Amino acid sequence: MGPHPAVAAIRLAVRRVLHDVLTDVQRTDAQRADLRRPEAQRTPEHVPPRPAHPHPPREQATTPLVLVACSGGADSMALASALAFEAPKLGIRAGGVTVDHGLQDGSDLRAAEVVARLTALGLDPIESVAVDVGRDGGPEAAARDARYGALDAVADRHGAAAILLGHTRDDQAETVLLGLARGSGIRSLSGMAAVSGGPGADRRYRRPFLHIDRQTARKACMVQSLPVWDDPHNTDPAYTRSRLRHEGLPALEKALGKGVVEALARTAQLSRDDADALDHWAAQAEASVRDAAGLLECAKLYALPPAVRRRIVRRAAIEAGAPAGALFARHLEEVDRLITGWRGQGAINLPGKVVAQRQGGRLVIRQGC
Amino acid sequence: MGPHPAVAAIRLAVRRVLHDVLTDVQRTDAQRADLRRPEAQRTPEHVPPRPAHPHPPREQATTPLVLVACSGGADSMALASALAFEAPKLGIRAGGVTVDHGLQDGSDLRAAEVVARLTALGLDPIESVAVDVGRDGGPEAAARDARYGALDAVADRHGAAAILLGHTRDDQAETVLLGLARGSGIRSLSGMAAVSGGPGADRRYRRPFLHIDRQTARKACMVQSLPVWDDPHNTDPAYTRSRLRHEGLPALEKALGKGVVEALARTAQLSRDDADALDHWAAQAEASVRDAAGLLECAKLYALPPAVRRRIVRRAAIEAGAPAGALFARHLEEVDRLITGWRGQGAINLPGKVVAQRQGGRLVIRQGC
Repeated sequence: MGPHPAVAAIRLAVRRVLHDVLTDVQRTDAQRADLRRPEAQRTPEHVPPRPAHPHPPREQATTPLVLVACSGGADSMALASALAFEAPKLGIRAGGVTVDHGLQDGSDLRAAEVVARLTALGLDPIESVAVDVGRDGGPEAAARDARYGALDAVADRHGAAAILLGHTRDDQAETVLLGLARGSGIRSLSGMAAVSGGPGADRRYRRPFLHIDRQTARKACMVQSLPVWDDPHNTDPAYTRSRLRHEGLPALEKALGKGVVEALARTAQLSRDDADALDHWAAQAEASVRDAAGLLECAKLYALPPAVRRRIVRRAAIEAGAPAGALFARHLEEVDRLITGWRGQGAINLPGKVVAQRQGGRLVIRQGC
Repeated sequence: MGPHPAVAAIRLAVRRVLHDVLTDVQRTDAQRADLRRPEAQRTPEHVPPRPAHPHPPREQATTPLVLVACSGGADSMALASALAFEAPKLGIRAGGVTVDHGLQDGSDLRAAEVVARLTALGLDPIESVAVDVGRDGGPEAAARDARYGALDAVADRHGAAAILLGHTRDDQAETVLLGLARGSGIRSLSGMAAVSGGPGADRRYRRPFLHIDRQTARKACMVQSLPVWDDPHNTDPAYTRSRLRHEGLPALEKALGKGVVEALARTAQLSRDDADALDHWAAQAEASVRDAAGLLECAKLYALPPAVRRRIVRRAAIEAGAPAGALFARHLEEVDRLITGWRGQGAINLPGKVVAQRQGGRLVIRQGC
């Protein structure tokens, strides 16, 4: 008899991601080996390096390490258990990190308990890192910044090939709704990426459970008799995400039907692809709308589709020093009217003391004094 | 003393739209006049016709007519009152239509009452049209199809330049959430258009209130002492939109804050622009990925961004006979794997008996037998 379906599902999800990690590791090794060859013998750039080596170069002798970030909750405990099971079969070392945010009494004891549970799963190395949570951007953002900083540091110290994060499809749905509430366009609807970067490595973080629902992770812990911890923050109505989880999403499901979480997760993927394509287009188009002096020509901007024009203007504002997070749709609409509805308007003030104005058929965006 | 702010807001919204309608009417007249000139004297196609004529051609002697579609509810009664006030000042005739869906006892009396109220506002002509609501696509879709069919017929009969619809920002927010629940991408997040077409005319329908909230429309009726009718369907929990309005959206606002409706409406506009730009890109790219025989080349499709490739595949499937409404994201994902993850898969069945398969490096999508 095979494992319980929930356990089979989480293991399959982790196995797929570990395969991807191995492919990336081997590709990097191949590139390193390639760089030591005389230039004429190097693999041309447009040919992707072979994914596997029959005779791995010496650097690869160390077994790659994959870490799981674990809070002790059901999602990340399920993830840790699947990593512990799958990694050895692929010649990967499995380790774990838990971050003590120091926000609740006894959080240090909690962290020690998580270390004990990860040890029981056979993970090695295991680190517990205490962080100081600041106040920038609100309590949730500050905790997140501190957490990722700590995870990056641990990964760097151990030379880890990847860090697995336990975000589920339900987390993804919540993230899409949070983005929707900003009303700032499809990039904010694209949720969390299955693969994303840290300062040290651009494909460091992996989210194997983005297609797994929270209930499956919980079930997998139960049938494996893994104790899990329910973070009181997750049910604290002071947190937006918690209100969304316990009130907003259930009400939306009641109104729209049971498929809402899946639909939101699918929206994330589709929006991400669309946003990537449009960003690419805007980056390409930008060069063609600048004059010899590098200034943006209004007539050429006008001829572009609004979606592309808006992105070029946004990039220019950020380049001039406007903080991306403070630049809202209404700012961009006002700048857009300098191009599409010109009737001699004055300069427009943007966040970060950036000023946008039309001068002699050019859109000039620069930091004021 | 000027009018109450709510009345000022609805009148301004209608005035702006009437100006647009006039511009369109004059442009069409100019094009008609142009076609009667000898070919050499015609305005070249790439020069947009002048918006206004100093000496209008004879056809324009008839004053343009704008109709309001009115259910007797607060939104459309507010719209009717603003149209009655603004139209004469711009030399436009204002008329009204009410549609009796025959779904409730006494709906004929209700329609007669709406006609009386529109008459009291000074609208002329006014029509009441009884329709038979079918069953295709569920009760809401069937009622909508019957309603637009009737409105198109009345507009054609009277040669109306436009029909105004009373959809508010709240309706728009609900439409975005309904689209989100389908999880089929950003086109379904783009809500209702401010300007859309009917079979007879491609800019027939106008929605002046998409930036006005329901509360403002209701207030405008109250301060003008206009009696309004509350459709019991709007509070009937058997209807998805009604559940969303009375339970889903309020819960979402409670979790995410008061700006949710505005954020959803802004998402609609941004998504519409993005979807238009990507559709345009896909239409352009499609020619470049077909071989001499007109078949789609997999290698060239593979090189495109996923968002563009998906749209080309979708167009090809619809062209082959797959009904757009039955073609889901999962279908397109499976076809996409013929391009991006080829390992000898067999043919893929799509709705409408359409079959997609890979043959000799080509993606062949056609109706099976």
